[in-house]
Parts: sequence; structure tokens; C-alpha cells
Amino acid sequence: MSGVDVRIGIIGGGLMGRELAAALGRWPALIDHPVRPRLTAVCDIRPEALEWFRQIDTVTQLTTDYHEMLASDEIDVVYVAVRHDLHEAIYTDVIAAGKDLLAEKPFGIDAPAAESILRACAEHPGVFVRCSSEMPYFPGAQLAYRMIASGELGRIVSARSAFLHSSDLDVTKAINWKRQVATCGAAGVMNDLGLHAWHVPLRLGWAPRTVYADLENIVTERPGPDGVPVPCDTWDNAVLHCRVDSGEYSFPMTVETKRIDPGEKNTWLLEVVGMEGGVRFSTKNPKRVEIFAKIPLSGGGSEQAWQQIDAGSQSAWPTVTGGIFEFGFSDAILQMWACFLAERTGELGPRFATAHPREAAATHRLAVAALASHEGGRAVSLAAEPALA
Amino acid sequence: MSGVDVRIGIIGGGLMGRELAAALGRWPALIDHPVRPRLTAVCDIRPEALEWFRQIDTVTQLTTDYHEMLASDEIDVVYVAVRHDLHEAIYTDVIAAGKDLLAEKPFGIDAPAAESILRACAEHPGVFVRCSSEMPYFPGAQLAYRMIASGELGRIVSARSAFLHSSDLDVTKAINWKRQVATCGAAGVMNDLGLHAWHVPLRLGWAPRTVYADLENIVTERPGPDGVPVPCDTWDNAVLHCRVDSGEYSFPMTVETKRIDPGEKNTWLLEVVGMEGGVRFSTKNPKRVEIFAKIPLSGGGSEQAWQQIDAGSQSAWPTVTGGIFEFGFSDAILQMWACFLAERTGELGPRFATAHPREAAATHRLAVAALASHEGGRAVSLAAEPALA
Amino acid sequence: MSGVDVRIGIIGGGLMGRELAAALGRWPALIDHPVRPRLTAVCDIRPEALEWFRQIDTVTQLTTDYHEMLASDEIDVVYVAVRHDLHEAIYTDVIAAGKDLLAEKPFGIDAPAAESILRACAEHPGVFVRCSSEMPYFPGAQLAYRMIASGELGRIVSARSAFLHSSDLDVTKAINWKRQVATCGAAGVMNDLGLHAWHVPLRLGWAPRTVYADLENIVTERPGPDGVPVPCDTWDNAVLHCRVDSGEYSFPMTVETKRIDPGEKNTWLLEVVGMEGGVRFSTKNPKRVEIFAKIPLSGGGSEQAWQQIDAGSQSAWPTVTGGIFEFGFSDAILQMWACFLAERTGELGPRFATAHPREAAATHRLAVAALASHEGGRAVSLAAEPALA
Amino acid sequence: MSGVDVRIGIIGGGLMGRELAAALGRWPALIDHPVRPRLTAVCDIRPEALEWFRQIDTVTQLTTDYHEMLASDEIDVVYVAVRHDLHEAIYTDVIAAGKDLLAEKPFGIDAPAAESILRACAEHPGVFVRCSSEMPYFPGAQLAYRMIASGELGRIVSARSAFLHSSDLDVTKAINWKRQVATCGAAGVMNDLGLHAWHVPLRLGWAPRTVYADLENIVTERPGPDGVPVPCDTWDNAVLHCRVDSGEYSFPMTVETKRIDPGEKNTWLLEVVGMEGGVRFSTKNPKRVEIFAKIPLSGGGSEQAWQQIDAGSQSAWPTVTGGIFEFGFSDAILQMWACFLAERTGELGPRFATAHPREAAATHRLAVAALASHEGGRAVSLAAEPALA
Repeated sequence: MSGVDVRIGIIGGGLMGRELAAALGRWPALIDHPVRPRLTAVCDIRPEALEWFRQIDTVTQLTTDYHEMLASDEIDVVYVAVRHDLHEAIYTDVIAAGKDLLAEKPFGIDAPAAESILRACAEHPGVFVRCSSEMPYFPGAQLAYRMIASGELGRIVSARSAFLHSSDLDVTKAINWKRQVATCGAAGVMNDLGLHAWHVPLRLGWAPRTVYADLENIVTERPGPDGVPVPCDTWDNAVLHCRVDSGEYSFPMTVETKRIDPGEKNTWLLEVVGMEGGVRFSTKNPKRVEIFAKIPLSGGGSEQAWQQIDAGSQSAWPTVTGGIFEFGFSDAILQMWACFLAERTGELGPRFATAHPREAAATHRLAVAALASHEGGRAVSLAAEPALA
Repeated sequence: MSGVDVRIGIIGGGLMGRELAAALGRWPALIDHPVRPRLTAVCDIRPEALEWFRQIDTVTQLTTDYHEMLASDEIDVVYVAVRHDLHEAIYTDVIAAGKDLLAEKPFGIDAPAAESILRACAEHPGVFVRCSSEMPYFPGAQLAYRMIASGELGRIVSARSAFLHSSDLDVTKAINWKRQVATCGAAGVMNDLGLHAWHVPLRLGWAPRTVYADLENIVTERPGPDGVPVPCDTWDNAVLHCRVDSGEYSFPMTVETKRIDPGEKNTWLLEVVGMEGGVRFSTKNPKRVEIFAKIPLSGGGSEQAWQQIDAGSQSAWPTVTGGIFEFGFSDAILQMWACFLAERTGELGPRFATAHPREAAATHRLAVAALASHEGGRAVSLAAEPALA
Repeated sequence: MSGVDVRIGIIGGGLMGRELAAALGRWPALIDHPVRPRLTAVCDIRPEALEWFRQIDTVTQLTTDYHEMLASDEIDVVYVAVRHDLHEAIYTDVIAAGKDLLAEKPFGIDAPAAESILRACAEHPGVFVRCSSEMPYFPGAQLAYRMIASGELGRIVSARSAFLHSSDLDVTKAINWKRQVATCGAAGVMNDLGLHAWHVPLRLGWAPRTVYADLENIVTERPGPDGVPVPCDTWDNAVLHCRVDSGEYSFPMTVETKRIDPGEKNTWLLEVVGMEGGVRFSTKNPKRVEIFAKIPLSGGGSEQAWQQIDAGSQSAWPTVTGGIFEFGFSDAILQMWACFLAERTGELGPRFATAHPREAAATHRLAVAALASHEGGRAVSLAAEPALA
Repeated sequence: MSGVDVRIGIIGGGLMGRELAAALGRWPALIDHPVRPRLTAVCDIRPEALEWFRQIDTVTQLTTDYHEMLASDEIDVVYVAVRHDLHEAIYTDVIAAGKDLLAEKPFGIDAPAAESILRACAEHPGVFVRCSSEMPYFPGAQLAYRMIASGELGRIVSARSAFLHSSDLDVTKAINWKRQVATCGAAGVMNDLGLHAWHVPLRLGWAPRTVYADLENIVTERPGPDGVPVPCDTWDNAVLHCRVDSGEYSFPMTVETKRIDPGEKNTWLLEVVGMEGGVRFSTKNPKRVEIFAKIPLSGGGSEQAWQQIDAGSQSAWPTVTGGIFEFGFSDAILQMWACFLAERTGELGPRFATAHPREAAATHRLAVAALASHEGGRAVSLAAEPALA
């Protein structure tokens, strides 16, 4: 690998920061990638969180003040994974410092924050900014996206995109910052999981014309740090019933984000059926893709069939892993970073790009529409999104 | 079988009329049923349709004029399966003639027709009237209903009821009376399939507070009898997103009726999940029921599990068929008639009753709300339904 | 239905006798069948078992002595469902009396008994004799059979046929005659279920060249009528690993009959895969058929796929039931009888015939080979079966 | 990570060598692992294969002569992934050189080779040697193993272990060294895939008493490098039907290794059912585990159920990855190395150990038995394996 060195800094040394550090170590698995990233700096306000990163040979800066990192000349790209209420300040600081950014969703705690970040982008056009969304990099999701984008499904009959969790079914699970409006945002689960479910639809150009939302706050208090119940005031489940215009017709699309969907540990799914074909993928079985077709039968006649195939290991960027092997979440993280860094250097080609700031910001407008819809009991129209390309 | 003889007449000698004739022949399969039905009369305006019934030994009257049948003293119960636009006139005539009635859905072509039939019922309180809905008699559906009705699922998180067909995906399929407003009704697929999907929710007391509807007319013309395209102006697919009040909380319920759902040949499904449990049944696999529970794991801890069990042959009314055997559609028809005739004689006991006229009429009010919702892009409130019992 | 009247007598008024009575009542569901069967006589040594049949209008003779039935001129066809140890005597008596016979499997308690019955057949060539096997009449099984028989699967890679039960997992289940050698036969579960699993393979011409058997008697005693444990000395599970010759090559086929297969309530399955295609059907989901094919992918390339289709209601003989509806066990019984009686009158055409006496007898030779194999720990060769046709 | 540095050398810079290099980069994902491995040397006879490894910073030696690597003081552990016919010479050289070894299966091309390697182990007791087998590290497999080993399943009714591939269904696929006896070994697919399928059964102490084998060589020639057909003389599919002794009883176990199983891209599966419970895991859906239990039903009674749970990301050694995320093949490689290196330092604890040389050697004795069984058409007895612990 003769790739160009890129120096990475992390702000927020939690779960996803460590996952990134591990993913960068696996970088040699990528075949002929133009970039060679190195984790060089990590910032976390909790000094103890920094300790974990001492094992990474390439790390040279550990700090509790992100301004120190931004002041460094030794950083090319910053990954930020912090509480939603901190997104706006930190993201705009990163951008203003001229560092490229892979930002965690939801890209600001609300629409105004997202707009503020977008303005920072506009003011620093040389800074490359994208938003994190790794689930579409599962091979089955990639195949589904290609099939849908090709138009081969014919007139779309229905579409569904969802990200479904279930651990909040446990009402004794302790409160955390993602379960409170102040730190998660008024959009609740839509802030948490929304971009996961919206990334592919938006990339397909399926910004909805209208949204009708069904929102649920099922568990309204949870044990606080000391066990005493405290308010749990965000939305647990959000189901958005949308109409999407597509040339001469429109079609229904349902986009779901749920923290309480019994039995769904980490289910990201995409299902689109049209008059000529259909495709389904779900991480409920991350190895399977289902393709709908009308098939001829022995002896004459035909039947409608869902065809099950095993997805292999190959996603957007080729790797050394044998094509028949099982793909996992950590592979998805690696693929997202491969595409992010390749796009940054203009070498992504036709591969699937990470989420664009406009896509991330669009999820906030959708959440605003959803909140208004839920409040008013009506479908809310959205202004047409400008095309991404 | 020492059951009381009941004489059955059929108006409409089509598919379902013949299915009933066959089901009555299988009556001895029922254990200790209080009634012994005999098919004695059949009416159809097409003389050639009557021919088929000549093979039934007990049939003594074949006529093209249903008034003749209603004038007979030899008929106790009439089953009517005719075009929707004929329901009101025939059903009210049957009732006025003092014959008991099992009516095909949708119980009138629209809400005024249904109200008219309800008035006839009120005017003839001695006449026993119910509406056809056989799918809830699949054993898996019966188990699901019992589990839900017991309250053991805890606070309901979400509910889904659906009846899904796919043959209309074939755009070359010829027009028929169910695909045109004049004969099927303005509610389209909701008239056709609505009671199938609403019967169990309504029986559970889940008349929705609000309905938001997404309606689709995808195939707008189809070949006529001579192959020339004619308008196909009814709704193909209807998805109703509802809120249901349940004591201190409400929950989302989706009720779907579709003629174009690729791959779904005849899928009736019911899925309800709550904070304490869940249950799923679908005729996509008519032998399986899935029950959600939190299960302990070996070595400690627990996991959320969907538990798959094989349903057997036993439904509402016991039969001589071995309990392990596979239940089919014709068994569902038999069970529905077993419960209809048992209820008529006051001997149903706690078993699942066939659809009540008020349930059938409620589907029209729901369709009216759905049409208004679709037109206005908003959730439409429904007046509280009076409790059935 | 202008079919020729055929008068049916039943010897053995238990579960299957009542199932037949119910099935005959449903006969009008068959379209244009050449025969019109009537149940006219029933024999059971338990007078109380006869009572149930009094409700059947056409029954004119109830007797505890089957010789009385055989002496009657009013019987054309006899169905016998009695204990295995009684097969030989009764079947040969029926045949000697010149009555046509549909015999329950295993067609004699052992190979000598089967041979004795075959001799009776040979001595009375005018008597039409077949053996009961209803599971292949499930529509999915019919489709699978047609695909396999067509040769389109290419060189066979592997075949599996099985009939799997699970209720004997309950070790407190009481003993019955099928669990003891004296009344069930030394072949145990192979006598009970063997023809179910062998019918289609034998029909395909797949009489094995060798058999290696793995037999299990897991539960060796069960509660007797008074609760005191008594010996349960038959085989619970039998798995036969066979080689089948097919022209230039041979292939492995596994044929399983199990009383203890946890979770399998009544699973009959057939799975055959070849180099050019494959097919799977199981009553675990009686509505689904899976077809293997290599399918082209969008954008180039191909993948191996199992294609899932919904089977409908139509089996060997057409019925009035709508094609999209669910098929059940009672439909399978009806189809078997439709084909049995049609073949008897020479009007079966290309439809799937019920099990031939030679097929039934072959299962005994297979059981003998299995017992020898299990005893000797070796594959046992079978003499080539004469072709059926 | 304050782990002890361990220097790794690779002999054989192909697919699995590169996979290891990538896995070692991801090492920081492991929580509190006692070892810190570094890839320092790579050997391949093809100089061009070495080029890929230049991107690994820690690599200091690239050589085409493995003796050079073995002569180095800078190597602690060697991983060898070469042709089967080279195993004996290289493995014994590595051991003689005092280097610890993780060897690819089948641990020698045949039983004598395996015995030779075992002797080398015995002669160098200070050398730590294990064999590669990563599939049991899928979390679902770990759960299944724990359940089975706990004894909670009760008397075992049946067991199945398999590794199933399908790409050889394509008869135009070119020959390679794994398809020829000279380089793959006379055991064919059993050499390739056998340890994958045998590792867990052997670990459970389930060395069979007898083996009856069904072997298939379906595709007997394949295109050579120049497209001209050359002999393809190894076994494609091997199915071993075994009896396993377990105290007072024995049970049937089937162990399958197949290159031609249509539709199975890379399916490793383990299914064990007993009288008290059961468990199934398959990489066909690597996220699902199925647990059999008898469950109580609402309203009384119980049913046999297969309970489906979502496996998470956590395997034998804990990682920083969130517990709900999807596990992939590369995670399995990492886990195997985590356990190999932890066992090497005596810090494995109760975690699942990589395959022991005696387990690897046992697969050769099983293959010998299988070949003899296939040849002789009989079950072949195996001498009791000495217990591993």
C-alpha cells in the first residue's frame, strides 16, 4: 500500500472512537486504497477515556481540550463522536480550523444547529465534510441499492427503510443522555437513528413530498445514576409514512426508527418492491438478500418468487477477504472510512459515498415535519430538496 | 350427530357458494355440533351456475329468482354471495322475509347501504344476521387472538393486521366487477378485503380513534371482456395507520388491504407486540405461530426471543381430525359455519363468533374515514364505536 | 356431478375412518370427477365406535364383524384402517371377497405379510388394490414431484425424504399399539411412517441399491393403561442412508422416519438438489415451495438462489376451491381418494396415483434391509426392484 | 494495552496470510488482552506475494526461503498456510526450530503426516502448537457450544455438524490444488473442511465409535490453467454418519463437508437436539441462534418451540465493539488468534481454545475410517480417542 498518509484525530473517545481506532488498524485489508490513514490524536474530556488509546502506536497527542487538537498542524481529518448538544459548537470549530470532518449523526441537535453547520461548510468550501452512516455498506445493502438505483424494479409499489432496536424494552435500563431532550434533542430516536434509515432513500432521490408521523414515548421515566427514576422524555419510536414523487406517479414509503421493537437487536432494513421486481435486505440476517421476480415454472406457467441469495464479503471497496465470507459491523465501519477517505481525495469513482451534509441536514427537516405532523395529526409537506448532485 | 336440522339456501352460486356446499358435506368432521345443516336451495341469475348444485342430494330448489327462495318455508338460513352493489337489496329482502342470514362482506357497497341493512336488522330483531370472515379461524389466528385478548402481552407497542394479495401485479389480468367503483364501491380494495383485516382488531375492542390512510390505484385500466382496455378505477392498495385508545395510553395499529403486494398469494396476518409479550401469525406459513418472550439463557442472562411453534388442526370447534394435522382454507370455512350456526342456536359458548353486523358496518365507517383522510392528507377521527357486547 | 356411484365400506372406525367419512362428504368440491362415492358400511369390533357413523345418511350397514360386510353385495370398495398385525388377514379376506381395497400402510406387519397380500392380489387380478399415502398430494409436493420427474434438475447431487413427528418426546405419553413390536411390527416407526417417506422416491424409480440404517429406540418404556410402565420396544427413529443408481452415476438419498424429532409436529419433507436445479417442500410450511436456480444479478454476474413461492390450493385433481387458498390435510385425503377412485375406473390420466401394492411391499424389504444393516453395521444391498410401470 | 509483545511470522503469503495481517492490525479491539502481537516476517516462494506485506509497518523480514525465517531470533510464533503436501515438512521444521506454531488444517496431507507432526510436538514439548479453526468463534456457535457442554440438553437425540460450500457447482470453475489428490490429499474435501466440522464435536468429547461414510466425486475433471480439462480426482462431498457413545447410551451424529451443496456459500452449522432441549446455529444466518424448549401456552398446555434470538458481537474474548452489532468472519479470525495467543501464555481461562494437534490428527483418523467405510460399504470402528484434557 503506497497510499498517501492521512492523519486522523478523534474527538470523543467512547465506543465509536475506539471502533474507529480498531478499524484503522485493519486498513491493509483494503485493496489498492489511495490513502493510508493514521490515528495521531485523540481528545476526550474524561482523561481516563484517553488511556485506552495509548496502545495505538501512531497516536502522538492525547488531550482533554479539543482546541489543542484543532491547533495542531499534525491533523488532516477529525472524527467527532460526542453528545448531540455539542455537535454544533465542535463541528463548526473543526470546520473553521480547516480540518476535514467525519461527523457523527445527527449532525447537530436540531435543524437550526444543522443549518449552522451547513453555513460553516459553505464558508469553508475547501473543507471536506461528511456524516457517519455505516449500515448501507453491508454487501446486501449495496446490492439492494444498486438494484433500486438501476430502475429495474419498475414503477415502485412500496418502500420501507428502518432501523430497529429493542434493548429499551427493558424498563429497568438506566437513563442515558440519548433518552433526554436536553442532550439528545426534541426529535428523540429520530436524532439517534434517523440518518441510518434515511441515508439510502435520500441517496435514491426519494426525499418525500409529505410526511405523516406516528411518534411514541412509551417509557417516560428510567432509573437515574442513583437508581431514582428521572424523566425519559424523548421519543422511543418514530414511524414516518411518506409519499414520494417519482416522475408521473408517487409511492408510499415508510421510514421507521425504533428503540422498542421487541426482538430486533440491531435491525437495519431496506425493502423496495416495484411492478417489475423487488429487493429486501435486513441485518436480521446480514448474509441474505432477497430478490423478487416472476419465475417460469416447470411444465408451464409462472409464479411470483422471493429469491434468497447469500451475500458475500465484498462491499463498496474491495478487500483481501475471500468473497464467500461473512461480513460484520466492523467491516461496515472500515468500508465507510474507505469511501470517506477515497472521496476526499477524489478517487471514490462510482462507489457509494458516505452521507453528505445536505443528507444529514435533510433528516432534521424530516424530523421537524414529523413533529409537526404528530402534533397536528396531518401529513406535512416538505419543500422539494435540491438534488444532491 | 343428533343435531337439529337447519335448511340452508344460497343466493349466488359462484365460487363461495360451491365452497359452502362442499363444506356442509364435511360437517360430520365436527364433534358434537348441535346443528345439522342441509343445503336445500340455490339461487343464481345464471341458470348454468345452478347446474353444479344438482349433485348435492339435499338440494330441492334451484331458481334464478331469489324471491322464490325467500318465499319458501323450507329455508331457515340464507347465505348470500353476490356483487357488492346488490347487497343492500338482497340482504334487506332476506331479513324482511324472516330468514337468518350469513352475508358476504362488505355488507353493502358503502356506509349508507350498511346502515340500511342494520336498520333492517333492528326492525327484525328475531332474525339472526352475521357476516362472513373465515381467516380468523386458522388455529394460529385463534391462538393469537386468545393471547392478545388475555392481556398477557402487557402495554401494546404496535399492532398490524393485513390481508395481502398479489395477482393484480399482472397488468394483463382482465377487469372484473371488483375492480370498478360502480360494482365494487368507492372503497375499492377496502370493500373487498377490509373485513378480513378488521374483524379481529374490532373484536378486540380496537376501533381506532384516528385513521390516516394511504390509498393507491396503481393499475388504472385493464383488458375488458373483448381485450380492449377499460377503466379500473378502484383502489388497489389501502394502508390505514391508526391510533387506538387503550385505557391510559394509545398505540399505533396498521391495517393493510392490498391487491398488489408482490409475492403474497393470500396472506392474512396479525402481529401484536407488547411490553410483556407478542404474537405473530400469518397464512404465509399457516402452520406456524410465533410468540415473543424474554427467555433465560444457559449460564445466566436472558435474551429476547421469537418462539416458533407448529399450529395443529384444532380451531374454534373441535373436529375428528388428528390434532397434529395441517389446517387449510376449507377447514376455515367449516369452522366459520360451525360457529355461525352454533351461535344462532345459543350454543357457541366462549368460542370465536363470526363477524357481527356492527363489525361489518364499522368497516364502512373506517373506509369513509380513510377516503376522507386520503383526500385531506390528515388523520380523521372516528366517533367511538359502541361496545359490541 | 354425474359420476358413477361407488359404495364404500370402512373396516376400522377410528380416526382415519372418520376422516374418510368426512372427506367423502366434501366430494362435490372435485371438478368433473367420474365417480360418486357413498359410504354405505362400517365395521368396528367396538360397537361404540360405530355410533359416530350413524350421522352419515348413506350408511346402511354397521357391524362388528367384517365378514358380514364382505358378504354384502352393496359394497364396491373397502378401506381398512386397523392394527398392523391384522392387516394380512383382513386385506387378504377383502381381496378374496372380490372387493377393491384401499389399505392403510404398512400393508402387513412385515415382509412375509406383505408378500402374502401381494399373492392375494395376484390371485385376484380383477381386484383393484392400493395403499394409503396422502402427503404427496400437498400441492407443493406435487410441484416438487413434477420437477424432479421431468429431469430438469440435472445430475442429482442429493435427495432427502422424511416424515418427522415429535410428540413422543414426551416420555409420559402413554403406550399404544404402535409402540410395541407385537402389534406394530419389528420395523417400528418404519412400519408406521415408512410408506409416507418412501412413496415419492419409489415412484421416481429411486429404489436404493444399498441401505445403511441408523435405528434408535430412545424411550424404552411408557405408562400402560394403568399408569404402570410397560415395555415400549419399537424403533422410535430410523434414518436410512441409501445409494440410488441413476444411469451412469449414483447419488446419496436419506430417508428418515422419526417419532422423536423435537419441534416437528407433522413434517413431511422432500428435498432434491441436482447440478441444474433443486426443489424443496416441507409441510413445516405447507404453503411454500422452494426452487433452486442460478439467477442473473443486476449489473452482471449470477448467484445461486433458493426461490420461494406460495403454493396454492390445486393438487392432482382440480377442485372448486380458489387457486390462491390454503391446502390442508383434509384436502390431501380428498385428493388421494379422488385419484384412487379415478385410477380404479381407468380415468386417472397423468395424475399422481396412490401407492401401488408393490411400492408398499417394497417398504418392507427396505425395513428388512435396514434392520440387517443396523444389526450388522454395514450397508445392505437390495435386489433391484422391478419397475412399477 | 500493556500486553507482552509477540512477534509473528507467516509462511504462505496468500489469502489467509493477508487476512491474519489485517486481523493483527485490529488487535486493539480486544479488551485487556495479555499479548500484543506484531507481524514481523513473511515468507512466500513467490516474491510477488511478498509485496503486499510491505505496507505492514512492523514487518522487517520478507523472504522466499522459510528456513531464513526459522533461523531468525526475531520470531516467536509462526503461522503456516501452505499446500497440504507441504505441511509435514514445514510444520516439523518450525517445531524443530523451537517456534510456536498456528498451523492451517488439515495438519498434514494424511494420517502419517499428522502423526509425524505429532511426534515433532512430542519431541519439542516446549513448543506451543495449535491448528486453525475459526468458525466456532462466531458468537452463536459459542452459545451453542456452551449449552451443549453444560449437559442441559439431556440425552442427546441427534447431532449434526457441517461445513457446506457451493462454488464447485460451477463445472467450469478452474482446477486448483485443492481439487487434486497429489496436493490436497486422498481425503479430498475432508482434508479441506474436515477440521471445521469436527472441531466442536471432538471438543465435546464426541469422538465417534463408528463411522459410515458416503463420499462423492461429482465433477471428475475441470479446466486446467490453459483451459484444457485435467483430472479433478478428490472427493467433492463427504457425509459421515457416526455413532457416538455417551455414557449409557449412544446417539447418531452426522458430519458433513461439501464443496457442492447448492445455495450454501459458506455455511458452517451445528445442530444438537436432546430430550430436554436443543440448539442450532448456522452461518447461513450468522446473527441467529435457535434454542429448542417446551414452552407454556397462554390458557394452559405447552408446545415445543424453536426460539430465535439475535446473537450479538461478543465471542470468546471481549472486544470494544458494541454488544448488539453484527459479527463477521474477520472477527472470527481475530478471536481465534486472541485465544491462541492467550492460551500460549497460560491466560486463556475458561475460554474456547483453538484446535489441539490431537484434534487435528483425529480428523485424519476419521478420514481414514471414512475412506475404508466407503470402500467397504460398512461402518468402521475407531479406537477410542484418549481424552484431550
